[in-house]
Amino acid sequence: MTQTLSKTPMPTRERSRAGGRSARRAARSTRDVTMLPGLKRGIPICEVMDQEQVERIDAASMDILENVGVQFRDPIALEDWKRAGAKVVGEMVYLDRGLVRDLIRTIPADFTYHARNPANNLRLGGPHSVFVPMTGAPFLRDLDDVRRNPLLEDLATFHKLSHMLPALHSSAHHIVEPYDHPISQRHLRITYSSMKYSDKMFMGMTTSPKNAEDVMDMCAILFGEEFIDSHPVTTGNCNGNSPLVWDETMLGAMRAFCRRNQPVLCSPFVLGGANTPASVPATVAQLNAEALSALAYTQVIRRGCPAIYGHYLSTVSMKSGAPMAGTPEISLMNFMIGQMARYYDVPWRTSNTLGGAKSFDAQAGYESATTLSAVMHSGANYIWHSAGWNEAGMHCSIAKFVVDAEQCAMAYRMAQGPQWGDFDEAVRAVPDVGPGGHYLGHPHTQENFQTAFFMPELFDNNSIEQWVAEGSVEITERALGYAKTLLSEYQEPKLDEAKNEELLDYIARREREIPASHELNQEY
Amino acid sequence: MTQTLSKTPMPTRERSRAGGRSARRAARSTRDVTMLPGLKRGIPICEVMDQEQVERIDAASMDILENVGVQFRDPIALEDWKRAGAKVVGEMVYLDRGLVRDLIRTIPADFTYHARNPANNLRLGGPHSVFVPMTGAPFLRDLDDVRRNPLLEDLATFHKLSHMLPALHSSAHHIVEPYDHPISQRHLRITYSSMKYSDKMFMGMTTSPKNAEDVMDMCAILFGEEFIDSHPVTTGNCNGNSPLVWDETMLGAMRAFCRRNQPVLCSPFVLGGANTPASVPATVAQLNAEALSALAYTQVIRRGCPAIYGHYLSTVSMKSGAPMAGTPEISLMNFMIGQMARYYDVPWRTSNTLGGAKSFDAQAGYESATTLSAVMHSGANYIWHSAGWNEAGMHCSIAKFVVDAEQCAMAYRMAQGPQWGDFDEAVRAVPDVGPGGHYLGHPHTQENFQTAFFMPELFDNNSIEQWVAEGSVEITERALGYAKTLLSEYQEPKLDEAKNEELLDYIARREREIPASHELNQEY
Repeated sequence: MTQTLSKTPMPTRERSRAGGRSARRAARSTRDVTMLPGLKRGIPICEVMDQEQVERIDAASMDILENVGVQFRDPIALEDWKRAGAKVVGEMVYLDRGLVRDLIRTIPADFTYHARNPANNLRLGGPHSVFVPMTGAPFLRDLDDVRRNPLLEDLATFHKLSHMLPALHSSAHHIVEPYDHPISQRHLRITYSSMKYSDKMFMGMTTSPKNAEDVMDMCAILFGEEFIDSHPVTTGNCNGNSPLVWDETMLGAMRAFCRRNQPVLCSPFVLGGANTPASVPATVAQLNAEALSALAYTQVIRRGCPAIYGHYLSTVSMKSGAPMAGTPEISLMNFMIGQMARYYDVPWRTSNTLGGAKSFDAQAGYESATTLSAVMHSGANYIWHSAGWNEAGMHCSIAKFVVDAEQCAMAYRMAQGPQWGDFDEAVRAVPDVGPGGHYLGHPHTQENFQTAFFMPELFDNNSIEQWVAEGSVEITERALGYAKTLLSEYQEPKLDEAKNEELLDYIARREREIPASHELNQEY
Repeated sequence: MTQTLSKTPMPTRERSRAGGRSARRAARSTRDVTMLPGLKRGIPICEVMDQEQVERIDAASMDILENVGVQFRDPIALEDWKRAGAKVVGEMVYLDRGLVRDLIRTIPADFTYHARNPANNLRLGGPHSVFVPMTGAPFLRDLDDVRRNPLLEDLATFHKLSHMLPALHSSAHHIVEPYDHPISQRHLRITYSSMKYSDKMFMGMTTSPKNAEDVMDMCAILFGEEFIDSHPVTTGNCNGNSPLVWDETMLGAMRAFCRRNQPVLCSPFVLGGANTPASVPATVAQLNAEALSALAYTQVIRRGCPAIYGHYLSTVSMKSGAPMAGTPEISLMNFMIGQMARYYDVPWRTSNTLGGAKSFDAQAGYESATTLSAVMHSGANYIWHSAGWNEAGMHCSIAKFVVDAEQCAMAYRMAQGPQWGDFDEAVRAVPDVGPGGHYLGHPHTQENFQTAFFMPELFDNNSIEQWVAEGSVEITERALGYAKTLLSEYQEPKLDEAKNEELLDYIARREREIPASHELNQEY
């Protein structure tokens, strides 16, 4: 493996970040948009299974892999599996538990993501977690809270906001789907937008194997071919079709990423009760089998390549069949899946701040905060969909995006745990103030109040009189005002000029090669 | 101690509840409003301190009690403390740690609350928790979402809703302040309303020592004088004035409750950074000293009387000075306070679903759900303010009340942990369905879908098209419709006729004795 993986010591936060932080501070004295360092957990993880239950899930999953099998709808994968020693019958692959364990053992337990601004590099795995905004929304709620189809310029807006919101560690990829650009070529513009408007890490499109190759080529331009072969710089997502199916598109994209040593999320797409048994632990057992089969395949493709245990996880409404958010079983399954990923010593991904509400009402708030809390207590590493997700992923809301990002900043503080550094000094204020006094004038308070307690900017804590006098503004309107202010202050972290030109040349060439179409094209 | 305390085995849920449940089911076949049994935790507690840190807080608190002292602004308490062996100088009481430890050791680790319907009895302490609605709101947002002063009839509405919402375990007391009734006599009507409209347990007013005596007398009428002397039937709340002050009103009310063996919440009222040091652990150290001083005093009043480690806990906005909700430090302090209460082996109370929003917008949702999640992971026993709280407690919202109650039902399911009963059977569905199939038609799914996954009634999970077709109704309106439906189905759990008359006679007599006034009257 490479020097970026596992046991590599990280430079301290102060050392690695000083340059970027002070430079940006100088540019904008009023607002610090410096990215928070990757989260390092300081609180215990909620583990709802004992060792025997973990082993029971493991055994059930291994039984499924050995006896029920997994369908790999992809001739190359089937050949790969045969060579790797699996039993292959038609499209069915039967994986012996010894083979699975041997394969996943080489997945790094943690590794470092490299961003084009090295100050934004991020460690992932173990206690190290990152927040990544939502992606894939076919609609947005825009700066006027109007629901409509997104354009490339809307995607840029989200990439700019991702760049400026300190708790977001990534600009992701197609946060919203840019409808003003042909689907067959869209991945090029999306990737460029991620790279251009933010110098944080980003995600790579996996909409087809060829598209994934394009993303890899663009990463090679930005970082250098040799560099990416030994340093993770992006993340692909490969969804499974639960129960127990992986398709050609996803497997081909997976190969494009793994061959270049870039990590993919191996994400079964679970609608609990619809494509899994109506049982929380049995759903986890099936999901675990699915994730393991793909994780194992990443190591067939390239031994030692980083990979992430993934999932999209929901329970479904009996009324509409739609995925729900914030339900107790989703929280429980997150806790359990986290335990399984740690059992295999693989970093894992979950989904955050999900909402099924159609507008940014209290339902969205409850759903999102419940999801966020569960995710923080589950110990997830790659915390995806951390901003903007509403309407079961059908739209990304700008208002919700900035509020979610602040919620992530709050959860980040919570997950760091209590700060004991000034405990003795703080306790000495008690006799100074004495019974019936107040602390606001005490020197310790004046020095520490701002750092001791988080002050959310998007929550209104004024009196009702003040709130009414200011126009009875609810959170959606406040958040949109905040987003507009942020965007007005946005400063582009310019791409290196030569690389920028090379990227644009690449896109121009590929757009000549790929027929413009509103369907995906696997051939180009 | 009595047979209701600590080691008494509880009848099983099925046995104790069968009568009430089936009787009510027969009456209303469409909706089961049967109260959920008291929550028994099945997931681990989030403990953010190691043993050394717990002992460090304990030591700092004991230092405060010994050397800074606590002000008891009440001549009777000062005399009591002298007799108990404390050092008393003026109004200052200095408590030796040995004395404190000796006193709190007799507080029962758990006990059983008795309701007038024995099916609604509840165990509290250790893994046993209860949800109690908010109280004390000077305003309400009513069935039309209009913010106004509440009347006695509004209070009755909340008592009826508390009775019908399964996750709420109590009708509490003055959920809203009935402005149409003189303050000096209000406690009588409030108590009667709690007793009349619900047969769940309720809280007792502590607005003055005499008022507290009235509540005790009314409890004696409802349950029998001898019964209450050995069975907890209500809960009083005694707020401290942080830092380190207990006043005459609260201490007098505490005596009224403890002498009759009824538990009080010993609740420092903490606005982190304003009346405590600007440090999370130092705030906990001060709060802990305050709580211990009151808990110890309950045992001076009556050795072995049940008592509950309490607190109201917030951090304050730098902009308005108002208490905030859902901030990371509040969550952390809840985790820490829980650890301290368990260290002393005393049941503890916290506050739930708090919101600082002025309306039931997404802010309220985020704040409430964040608080609820933290509370569930903190292992709190007496989970107060579990429904309706918004605007920093200035109003109780009917819409939020019913939504919060459903959120509590969801959190209840989460805190029970995963259900393994049908695991093997559920896993056997995997080969039946096979790769690419779906589970909806499988017999295991059809039998278990409804119980396996929680379906929130107040979250909309329809498609946007359906939602728009139904009028684009947001959660506030849906919740108010739901509340109206519940109220239309309300069936009063009639009081025993003789007891009802005795209660009304008592109220009539006391209303003749207490001058009607819009100020509290400590004399009557």
